[in-house]
Amino acid sequence: MIGRLNHVAIAVPDLEAACAQYRGALGANVGEPQDEPDHGVTVVFIELPNTKIEFLYPLGDNSPIAGFLEKNPAGGIHHICYEVDDIEVARDKLLAEGARVLGDIKIGAHNKPVLFLHPKDFNGCLVELEQV
Amino acid sequence: MIGRLNHVAIAVPDLEAACAQYRGALGANVGEPQDEPDHGVTVVFIELPNTKIEFLYPLGDNSPIAGFLEKNPAGGIHHICYEVDDIEVARDKLLAEGARVLGDIKIGAHNKPVLFLHPKDFNGCLVELEQV
Repeated sequence: MIGRLNHVAIAVPDLEAACAQYRGALGANVGEPQDEPDHGVTVVFIELPNTKIEFLYPLGDNSPIAGFLEKNPAGGIHHICYEVDDIEVARDKLLAEGARVLGDIKIGAHNKPVLFLHPKDFNGCLVELEQV
Repeated sequence: MIGRLNHVAIAVPDLEAACAQYRGALGANVGEPQDEPDHGVTVVFIELPNTKIEFLYPLGDNSPIAGFLEKNPAGGIHHICYEVDDIEVARDKLLAEGARVLGDIKIGAHNKPVLFLHPKDFNGCLVELEQV
């Protein structure tokens, strides 16, 4: 069912410093910050040859990233995202297997249907599925 | 400098359950457990079309994963691994930029030269570099 690893999302406490570090010390291809006010985040994509790293930085007063950064002041990996062909088929299969889907299918920051799976059910990892 | 994302390593508290879940609920291509006694881990690779997930499970009495699982009983993402062409060039560049290299270059679980970077310097993520 799952296909490519679409991205690894890292919550960062200092977006400018994180971008400078990945551009400089790691020599990576770092994009420009994009504000996603509907999702309460500013994102920056780092394009690797086979997948993407997504920096997440809080935007606005109710950012879903703010609490994560309070608990993890140095930052940390926030979620990993696997691609699926059909998000509804994926949801139904996961629910049938007893996995907890957080909320329901939503339109994610990349304008694709996504859902999130409970980290406690998936080895402590918040897992996003994105229909591509 | 960094190339492909070689793998995302997830420390899991129950290797059999994690494999069954990725094979079943997520429909992924899950390999067989491989003991790496020199590294104190049993590993399982999940082959995605563009990269790998590596499950890590403690092996023996001094496993480097045991402490992580004590702090994170549900499991969690342990590290991410980027590929580099030349590990010595990478180390020297990172040291010159002020990043902390944990120990020195070692031969990793995949029989390739690797090094680890301090998570506090990299947005709370333990970063492995592997020469390919």
